[in-house]
Formats: sequence, structure tokens, C-alpha cells
Amino acid sequence: MATALIVLAAGQGTRMNSDLPKVLHKVAGAPVLAHAMRSGATLGPERMIVVTGHEREAVERAAREVDEAAVVVEQAEQLGTGHAVAQALPALEGFAGKVLVLFGDTPLIRAETLRALADSTADITVLGFQAQNPRRYGRLITNGSELQRIVEFKDATEQERSVTLCNGGLMAVDSALLAELVSDLSNDNAAGEYYLTDIVASARAGGRSAAVVTCDESETLGVDTRAQLAQAEAFFQSRARAEALENGVTLIAPETVFFAFDTFIGRDSIVGPSVVFGPRVTVESGAEIHAFCHLEGCHISRGATVGPFARLRPGAELAEDVHVGNFVEIKNAVLGEGVKVGHLTYLGDAHVGEHTNIGAGTVTCNYDGVMKHRTEIGARAFIGSDTMLVAPVRVGAGALTASGSVITEDVPDEALALGRVKQVNKPGLAKRLFERLRAEKSRRQKEAK
Amino acid sequence: MATALIVLAAGQGTRMNSDLPKVLHKVAGAPVLAHAMRSGATLGPERMIVVTGHEREAVERAAREVDEAAVVVEQAEQLGTGHAVAQALPALEGFAGKVLVLFGDTPLIRAETLRALADSTADITVLGFQAQNPRRYGRLITNGSELQRIVEFKDATEQERSVTLCNGGLMAVDSALLAELVSDLSNDNAAGEYYLTDIVASARAGGRSAAVVTCDESETLGVDTRAQLAQAEAFFQSRARAEALENGVTLIAPETVFFAFDTFIGRDSIVGPSVVFGPRVTVESGAEIHAFCHLEGCHISRGATVGPFARLRPGAELAEDVHVGNFVEIKNAVLGEGVKVGHLTYLGDAHVGEHTNIGAGTVTCNYDGVMKHRTEIGARAFIGSDTMLVAPVRVGAGALTASGSVITEDVPDEALALGRVKQVNKPGLAKRLFERLRAEKSRRQKEAK
Amino acid sequence: MATALIVLAAGQGTRMNSDLPKVLHKVAGAPVLAHAMRSGATLGPERMIVVTGHEREAVERAAREVDEAAVVVEQAEQLGTGHAVAQALPALEGFAGKVLVLFGDTPLIRAETLRALADSTADITVLGFQAQNPRRYGRLITNGSELQRIVEFKDATEQERSVTLCNGGLMAVDSALLAELVSDLSNDNAAGEYYLTDIVASARAGGRSAAVVTCDESETLGVDTRAQLAQAEAFFQSRARAEALENGVTLIAPETVFFAFDTFIGRDSIVGPSVVFGPRVTVESGAEIHAFCHLEGCHISRGATVGPFARLRPGAELAEDVHVGNFVEIKNAVLGEGVKVGHLTYLGDAHVGEHTNIGAGTVTCNYDGVMKHRTEIGARAFIGSDTMLVAPVRVGAGALTASGSVITEDVPDEALALGRVKQVNKPGLAKRLFERLRAEKSRRQKEAK
Repeated sequence: MATALIVLAAGQGTRMNSDLPKVLHKVAGAPVLAHAMRSGATLGPERMIVVTGHEREAVERAAREVDEAAVVVEQAEQLGTGHAVAQALPALEGFAGKVLVLFGDTPLIRAETLRALADSTADITVLGFQAQNPRRYGRLITNGSELQRIVEFKDATEQERSVTLCNGGLMAVDSALLAELVSDLSNDNAAGEYYLTDIVASARAGGRSAAVVTCDESETLGVDTRAQLAQAEAFFQSRARAEALENGVTLIAPETVFFAFDTFIGRDSIVGPSVVFGPRVTVESGAEIHAFCHLEGCHISRGATVGPFARLRPGAELAEDVHVGNFVEIKNAVLGEGVKVGHLTYLGDAHVGEHTNIGAGTVTCNYDGVMKHRTEIGARAFIGSDTMLVAPVRVGAGALTASGSVITEDVPDEALALGRVKQVNKPGLAKRLFERLRAEKSRRQKEAK
Repeated sequence: MATALIVLAAGQGTRMNSDLPKVLHKVAGAPVLAHAMRSGATLGPERMIVVTGHEREAVERAAREVDEAAVVVEQAEQLGTGHAVAQALPALEGFAGKVLVLFGDTPLIRAETLRALADSTADITVLGFQAQNPRRYGRLITNGSELQRIVEFKDATEQERSVTLCNGGLMAVDSALLAELVSDLSNDNAAGEYYLTDIVASARAGGRSAAVVTCDESETLGVDTRAQLAQAEAFFQSRARAEALENGVTLIAPETVFFAFDTFIGRDSIVGPSVVFGPRVTVESGAEIHAFCHLEGCHISRGATVGPFARLRPGAELAEDVHVGNFVEIKNAVLGEGVKVGHLTYLGDAHVGEHTNIGAGTVTCNYDGVMKHRTEIGARAFIGSDTMLVAPVRVGAGALTASGSVITEDVPDEALALGRVKQVNKPGLAKRLFERLRAEKSRRQKEAK
Repeated sequence: MATALIVLAAGQGTRMNSDLPKVLHKVAGAPVLAHAMRSGATLGPERMIVVTGHEREAVERAAREVDEAAVVVEQAEQLGTGHAVAQALPALEGFAGKVLVLFGDTPLIRAETLRALADSTADITVLGFQAQNPRRYGRLITNGSELQRIVEFKDATEQERSVTLCNGGLMAVDSALLAELVSDLSNDNAAGEYYLTDIVASARAGGRSAAVVTCDESETLGVDTRAQLAQAEAFFQSRARAEALENGVTLIAPETVFFAFDTFIGRDSIVGPSVVFGPRVTVESGAEIHAFCHLEGCHISRGATVGPFARLRPGAELAEDVHVGNFVEIKNAVLGEGVKVGHLTYLGDAHVGEHTNIGAGTVTCNYDGVMKHRTEIGARAFIGSDTMLVAPVRVGAGALTASGSVITEDVPDEALALGRVKQVNKPGLAKRLFERLRAEKSRRQKEAK
């Protein structure tokens, strides 16, 4: 059946104690909102409607990054979840099928769970979860697989309170029914708000069928505080680590590895302790990422070894068997097969041909204070230690730069480029110099007294 | 009511297996002793008396770092807690009010708990805690809010052993009463020691009132082994992380962030995984500290971004919107607004004017082998990659240093400073050189056989 | 009594989802197999027999790295544990004593546990453990200290299933008896395999005595999946951390420190958060390893301080009071007493004399593209920042290299070596240059439109 999604993302989240609305805080490198939307997107919905309020423009931008075609509607005043859904109804005009109502602040909801909601044949289906400690959650009162009603904790009898199946908030409703039920909602309650939850009672009163789909409690975790944000991150990481292990990746210390929402790592790769993956990283099979690496927007090919203490930034592309060692930063640079960059190097805006060796302390001077420029290095070249490559510049294949050289002009293939002064030794001068410095120091110390 | 503190810090702690007395081992960057003293100091006590024994001088130094006015007395022989307090009595001469007896090896005791002890109106008030697993702790036998007696585990009946309210050891006692009770203590027991605990029975026997103030069990954790030291650190960090989250700081992976006892981080700042704060760090609102940073004695202003892989050492001051990138060390240096230090740099004993860009591989050569010298860099300057700034030296505003230059003399404002050799290309020489090296290598390999 | 070991290491471990057989995956820097063998080796066995199958050669190499004298036999087809032991029987020819059968995929088995098995006087002794959650493990049915039989879960009665003493699989058997029992094994069961477990019933039927030795459940953890590999690593680390604390080492955050199987750290050393030890590291007493260090194959002497952000690679030897600071890599280099290498340096294939100071940005250019060469630096020398030491080269005692110099020739004792160009200032040129670059940039931007 056709599906449409309504994602509620209007709240500020005052308990976050932040200038940023809660749905824009990040989990695993993506806004909380994006997680819910991405899960929803796996259903292939005909429409994705995002209800915004606080920081409307910023939330809209974030929504469009996930789904360019998202319909963004505004809830100018926050008058409850039912009111929020009401703002989305015009955008559902002409749609017939199942509508899922998602919360923009529950990033852990699984695609499988949404699929189960979408596939439910009841007129209205509510997400429930078995609570470890049900506290003050609303309870779902069921008869077999049928949902009879939702009771708020404060209205529940002792017996109802002993029920541990709690209301997860998400719903799937037939589109025509949703419009009808939401239009009929009243705000005749203590808070003066329109509660989406109330449509279940109306639906039942109207003889409609209601069902429950259950999920793990963690999936319903809402991000209202920084502690919950950290908890959502921890849940996400815990899932992602388990998946990586399942996929045949060795994580020496899984609890110290942090994935982004879209990290991909191939089988028989090894990831050491304390590795952080930012968004858009792909690692092929059989690569090795040592401890203390920070990776983002990069690709690491089969057989490559990275770190410890390496930083790969967006646009770093490592071909097979590349070695990037310690205290090395690579940004927007392609390293050909077998390239070695062992130590203390910055390569930015560069292309390095296969089997080239980059000496310690090499820097691509890619910025002249105003513009960025590119460095091209050919295959099987040898860049001596402490070579400054003043871009734009090209070093030819099989060429060599002498250590300590500043390369400002292109180096032909197989040429040696030199830019340094011959060493001069001044006998005894170190001794005399230090004597002078020490005398000066003790003179100053005496003066200081 | 006026308060005075007696902090017992004479023990060696043989189970620490250390040359250092246990109270000088550190939690969150400060000696265990300092934590107890700092909690006590929040009461604004009239006198702070520290009883020392093992490594007297070192303990005294640590005590004075927290409170210059601390009265340090010596317990030459360690004959029990009662004996320790007896050594402090002369230093209480002339004081009338409430005396709190603290342990120098319980770093987690909270200010609020000490306040409750100080505010108790009973003649003698003992700190108690509900033990998860009471083991062999002494039990507090109470009648309502009144403390009837303390029973040691070995002397307790089955019924008394079922009591889970345990003796936390700390006490608050009226000063006159304390002197009287402590003077009357006997060491007529198996260990031949004077036990402070015994004064409760005497007080009760003398018709004095006794009460209990309770705290969380973790607050009473004593540091007697390295495992307990690690546990105290973990408790401290857990508290500090929760507070940071509460204050509106995002900690992506709280369990990997380590705070010092005095770290301050402003609202809406973001701290990535694996960040270590040493003492005296302040971070303003809206700053971003990426993964793998090590910070100590530094200030980070609003909008600044630091790391990953950055080290800020004492005296690093980052103005607003400064960017310090990877493999960068800053020590005793002020960076003006908008300064960028992106990669592989050491700045020490320096001042950098606003909006200046520091190229990769820059080093302030601040040490000549004998003395340290300063580097001054003006605003909107551009320090080319691999510039050596041989201090003392000054680079003017708007000046530029060519990459690879060694700057030994001042550079005027808006001047270009150059100190490098023009590059020479030797056609075909790289090829011939490598051929020669390979021939040499195979010659050596043959010889080696 | 004489002991011999049979280590079963033939399995592939398909659930690892790996090209590598499971026994070669690593825990704490050593193959899983090596852990079991090393525990077994503490018994001083007369023979160590390793039964291989999948990836026979690679497993054999790993086995020989632990014990050169290991007898490696092949199990060409994997027809069960009994069949595997049968392959080892010829290698036991002439041996009389106690045979222990170990699993190559249980790395956590303790030496003490194997000792207890070896010392058991029963004809056949089985390792058991009290299971937290016995699930589908086989149960050990005992009568006092006597083992009556092993029941598989599927064959067990309700009462037998309530037994929590489970079969750990390892056994110690008299050599003559083992040969007899294993030869009599049948594969008349559903899987068509020969089960070693079945020999217990035969032994009992033959009137032999059987006993149980128990161990902690964690010791029997078998590595069949990457999740179990990570769990084994976690158990190992947890043990190693507790031992270090016990030995008087301070671990500020034990949960973030990773030891290798053979790490040694002396008393009163301090290890900060996030430190990774690879194999063959020894740290003397009173050293300090700061956060974010990666150490392998190195020795750190008393009073030395390392890191944060330091990498010591194989062959790094730090004498007393050496200081290695941030973003420094040391490989195959000996640093004499009191040497300081503070920042951004690579020292490889080098010897540095005592009390020498190595400036920031120093690199030993040890590789010429074909061969590696050595650098020798004398005592009390001063290597200026950004010095390139083009090996083979020697810097004398008390010598000084000017910062930014490329040292290609030996420097005599107490000489000053210089290889740099005098700085030239071009007044106003920075200003004109930036103006030109900005004009060029805006020209390009216009063109781009």
C-alpha cells in the first residue's frame, strides 16, 4: 500500500539547554531528525512531510539534505501533536494510503519497525514497547492483538498500571481516517493542547480496528536532554558495532570506536581502539585502521594501512596498499596504489602517483593566503623529508626532491630538484655560543635579584 | 555556627604499593587530599587543620596549595584516628563551634554533605550511608533520627548485622565536647589504637545527643588501593560528565571524556570523544573541541574550534573563532581573534595577532639551549609553511614569510621575508641516483652472503 | 608427573566470517592459539602437539613462534574432537604421563587451571565451570568430587538440566588410557563425528576414576565469532588492568588502556587515559605515560615521561629521565639519559647521546628510497628545530645544528653546523603580493560566472 510520512519536528526542546532546536543536535554525525527521516525513507513513501516550528529554516535545510522532495509545513504555534499533524493534512491532499506519524526527535526507530507499522492491516496501528520500568508512560490496553485503548498513567487504575506495554507514540493510520479523526480533535484538557493519542479512542468509538506493533524500548528513546542525546549516541554505536562485528570486521575494542550513520567497512578489515568515523567513510575489505585515527569523507582501499594518529579528511582517497602513518593529515587528495606517507605530513589538494614515497615533514603549501592550489606528484617519485611543495606545482614521475627543499617550480620526470644550501661546519663555535648564552643567562639572573 | 575542620592525612597507605602517601595520589588532576579539603573549604571554616605523618613535607605542600592558611600538625606515630584528632586539639585552642573531622583519603565527599553535618544540631553527628552490600562495615544503630550507638561488625548481633546503615567515619562535634571526649579515649583494645569512633559511646553515656547525617555510599569511598583510586576517578568523572550535560554541553561520548577538578565548559559547546582536560581549563560557550585533544591550563573562547589531535598547554589563550587543527601544540601563547593554526605546528611563548594564518610545519624556536625567548606576530600576517621563527623575533602586521624560511630578524609590517634557496632541477639525475643506489644495495647484499 | 599437551587448532571458524582461521585472530596482540599454548607451556610439558587443519602452514608458523619444538600434526578432515586427538596419538608414542587436551580457540584459560588439571590424580579429569546461565551446555553430573557422567543438554532430564556445573571441554587423561579410549571411539551419532567427550563414559564403564576441576566461566570462552573475539579481548584487558593496579601502577582510566599479552610496567608508573601497548613493551618504575600514546617493542626507563600523542615503535629505547613529547615518533633508536625530544619529530635508526636536546620538526632522513641508514648524535648536543639529518651522518658531542639546516655531512664535536640562507626582507612586498592575489581571485570569480 502507498505510504506517506509525517515527521513532527517543530519542538525547541528547552531541556536541551541549547540555542539549537533538539532535532538538529547530532547523533552519529547526522541530525536527530535525519535519522528518523532516513528510517522512514526506506519505506519509499510517496510523500515525506516535515512539520517545523522552532528554527524553521534550519530544520528545513536539514530535512532537505535527507530528502530534497520533502514537503515542509509550518506549525506556527505549538499546540500539541494533534495540532502538528493537522498542519500536515493539506500536504496530504490527493494521497490515499497509509500515513505514518513519526517524531523527529526519536533517532533510533528502525526501518523494520516502520515497515511493520506500514504493513499493519488495522485502521489505526500504534507503536508499543515492553518497558523495563514503565514509570509514567501511557499504557496500551490490548485484547489479544487488538488495541482497546490507551490510558494515560494519571488516569490508569492499579491494574492498568501493572501493564508493561507502553505507548511509543508513533502511529500508522489510513489517510482518509486520519484527516477525519484529526479534524475532530478537541483541546478540552488541562494543557489546552490537541493530543494525537486521542484519535485512538475516537477510532475505536467509531468501530474502527486498532492494533499494536511492538519494538524494542530503545527505539522509542526521545532526545529531550543532552543526557538522552548521549544515550541515543550510545545506543546507535552499540548497534553499529554489533553490525560491524557481524559483517566480519575486527574491532579490537568496540566500545572505543565511533561510527557515523553511513560508515561502511568491508570484511576482514581491522579497526584498532579509539577510532572515530565521521560521515561518508568507506573502507574496503582487508584494510587496517590503527588506533587513534579520525576519518571523514574518505575512501580506504583493500590492503591499505592507516595510522596510528592519522587524520583523513573529506576527499582523501587511498588506493590499494597505501600506507598512511602517524601525524599525517590528508585532505582532498588521491593517493595511488602503494603510496607511502609515513610521518608528520600534510597533503591537501593533491594527486600522488602510484608507489611514490612521501618523506617525513612534507607539506603541500596549497594556500597562498587567498586561493587554494593543487599539487601533482607522479608515480614512483621520492619526495625527500621536509619538502615544501608550493602549489600549483607538479613533480614528475620518478623524480626526486632533496630533503629540505622548497619546490616552487615543476620538476620534470626523473629529475632531481634541489633547493638548499650546502652545510658549513664552524669548529668550536657551538661551544663558544653556549658559553656566551650561559654567561648572559647568569648576568640576567643577577640583575633580576 | 562557626566551623573548624580537622583533615586526617597522616597515613601511608601501604596497600597502594607506592612510595607516595595515599593522600597525594591524584584524582581528576588534584591530590586526593585536595578534594576533601576543597569540599570542606566551601563551609568557610575558621580553621583548617591538617594532620600529617608520612611524607609530612610533601603533604604539607599539597595542603597549602589548597589553603595557604591551613594549620599543619604532625602525628609522629600513627596510633589511630582518635590519636590523630588529639594532635589537632592544640590547634583548636580558642575556637568555639562545630568541628568536622574529615579523612584526607575520601575525595568524593560532597560539599552538601559536609554542610548537613555542620548544620546538625546534635552534640555529635556521624556520617552514615545505606550500603548496597554492607560487608564488614560498622553499623549505625538508630532510633528514629537519633544515633544510639556504633557497633563494629565483629561485635554485632545477627540482628544488628541486618542493619544496612553503615558508619561513614566522618563526624561533626561541638568543639568543647570533642576535646573532652578525645582526651578520655583509651587504647585498651586488640590493636592498641585510639579509635575516634569510641567517642560516640562516651558522648551517649554522658547524656549527649547524637545524630546521623546520610550520604551516598560513593561519597565515603576511601582510597587505599590503586583500584580504589581508579574507582574514585571513575565516580568523579561520572559526576562531572552528568553536570556538563546538565549545563548544556554536548559530550558525544561522555564515557571517554576526562575532566579535571576545576574544568569549566560553557553552554552549547561540543566535546568529541577522547578528550582529556588537565587542570585550569575554561571553555566558553559555543566552542568545539574535536576528538583526541589534550588540554591543560588554557582558555578557549566562543566559536573557537580545536583539534582533532591538538594539545593546548598552560598559557594557551585562544580568542574568539580561533582554529587550532591537528598535530598542533600551543604553549604559553595568545592567539588573537580568528587566528588559524591548522597543522603540524608548535607555538610556544608567542603572541599572534588577529586573523593571522600560520602555515603547516611552523615552529617558534623559543629555546636556544639555555634560555627561552618570545615570538611576536602581528595581525593579518601570513606565516608560510615550515617557517622557523627564531626567537626573540617579531613579524609585523600584514607581513608574509616565504615557506621554508628561517626568520632570525624582525620582519617589518607588510614586508615579505624570504630565506631560502632558489630551486634547481637536475634533469635525469634522480634516475641515475636511484640506479646507483640500487646497484650499491645489490652489491652489499651479495657481499653479505 | 610428566605432562604432554594436545592443542586442537584445526577449525576454520566459519562464524568469524573471515579468510583467517579463528585461532590466528589476535587477542592482546597475539594469536588466540598462542594464548592457549603459552598457558600450557607454564606446565613445562614434555611434548606440545598442535593439531592443525585449515590454513595448516600459517597455523604451524604461529605455533612455532610460541614453541619452536611444537609437534604439528595434521587433521586432514575435520571429523570431531575425538578424531582430532586421534591424529595426535602417534606423536605421543613413547610418552608416559598425563595428557592435557586444550582448545586452540580458548585464549583465556589460566595457567593455574591447567596446573590443577595436571595435578589431578583421577584417571580422567574434566574441566567444569559454574555457568551463570547454563543454556545448552553439557552438564557435569557429579557425586561429591567424582564425575559420574557428562550429559548433553538435549539428552538431559529436567533434573539434570537444573545442574549448573557445565562441561568446559578440556581434559587431562593418563596417556595410555587416552590412546585406548580414543581408539575405541565411534562416530555412530547424528553428526557422524567422533566426540572426545564420549571417552568419559567409556572410562567410567571401564571402572576408571573421573574427576572435575573447576574454573571461572570466562576461562572457557571460545572464540567463534568476532563478538566473542572482542569479548575475549575485553576479558583479557580486564585481567591485565587489575594486575597492573595490584602491582602498584596507576591507571587513571583503566577501561581505556590496552595491554599486550606481555606488557610489563613497573611500580609507581602512571599511565594516562587512552594508551595502547603493542607486544614487547617494558616500562620501569616511576615512568609516566601520558594520554594518547601508542607503544610497541620499546623500553622506557625509570623517570622517563612519554606523550601525550607519542608513538614508540620497535627498537625505541628510552634511558632514564628521557622526555618524549607530542607528535613524536621513535623507531629503532636509543635515547641516552635525559634526552629531550619535545615536539613533531621523527627519529629512526638513530642513537642519541645523553642530555641532548632535539628541536621541534627534526627528522632523521633514514631512507634514501632504496636503503636505510643510521644517524649518530653525541651527548649534550643541540639539534635546532627543523634539522634534517640525512643519514648516514654523525653529529658530534656538544655540537649544534642551526634550525632549518639540512645536515648531510658529519658535524665535529662542539662545532656549529649551518645550512641555511640569510633572511632578506622585501619591504611592502607582502602587501603588494596579497593585493595581486586578491585581484587575480576576483578576476577568476568573474570569469567563472
